[in-house]
Amino acid sequence: MSVQTVARSFVELCRQGKNFDVMRTLYAPNIVSVEGDGKQTTGQGEVIRKSEDWVSDKTFHGETVAGPFFNGANPDQFAVYFTLDITPKATGQRITEEEVAVYTVNQDDKITREQFFYDGEH
Amino acid sequence: MSVQTVARSFVELCRQGKNFDVMRTLYAPNIVSVEGDGKQTTGQGEVIRKSEDWVSDKTFHGETVAGPFFNGANPDQFAVYFTLDITPKATGQRITEEEVAVYTVNQDDKITREQFFYDGEH
Repeated sequence: MSVQTVARSFVELCRQGKNFDVMRTLYAPNIVSVEGDGKQTTGQGEVIRKSEDWVSDKTFHGETVAGPFFNGANPDQFAVYFTLDITPKATGQRITEEEVAVYTVNQDDKITREQFFYDGEH
Repeated sequence: MSVQTVARSFVELCRQGKNFDVMRTLYAPNIVSVEGDGKQTTGQGEVIRKSEDWVSDKTFHGETVAGPFFNGANPDQFAVYFTLDITPKATGQRITEEEVAVYTVNQDDKITREQFFYDGEH
C-alpha cells in the first residue's frame, strides 16, 4: 500500500461510521495519540479505551470527514478535518465540535501517531 | 501576544478577505511556504508573489476558514481548514478546493512557516 492508500481507507471507514474498525485494523500496536492539550496516550488498546471513554458520556449523532490531505515535505503523513455532531450527556445540548488531525504512517502501512488540533476542551 | 492571539488575528483577517494583509503584517521576512507537492518558497516577498500568481489565473469568489486549532505538543503552531471557492480561467468551471494549513509562529509573533496539505493539484 502507500500512505495515500492507507489515508483513503481511513477516511472511507470513518465515513461508514467504522471509527473503531479503523483503530483495530490500521493503528500500530505502539501508536501514540496526542490530544489538543498535549496529553499523550500510548498503545493501541489504551487509545481504543480513550475513545470508548470519550463516547461513553455523550450521544454521538455522526461526523463529517474532509480529506485526506497530503504534503510532500512530510510524505509519511496525512491530515483530515472532522466535524463531530454530539450531545454531551452532562448538558443535553447538541453541539458540533471540529478538529484537524494529522496521522503518521509507517512502512508497514500502520498509523503510528495521531495528533489532534482543536480549540478549547473536547 | 501569543500563538493563540496571532492565530485568531490571522483567521479574522482571512474571514474579512484580507489575506494579503495577513502576509504583509504577520509573515516573517524569512517565512518558508511549503505547498502540497513539497515545493518550498522562502521570503515574504516571494511568498506574496506566489499568492499573486495563484490568484491571477482564476476568479476568486471567496473562502471559508475553520479554526484556529491548537495542539499542546506543538505550542508554536496552529492549524486551519480552508475551502476556496474559485473559477479557474482555463476551464471556466467553478469549483471548491479544500486544504488544511499548519502555521508556525516565532517568539516575535511572526509566522515563519506555512505548510499546506491538500489532495492533487491546487
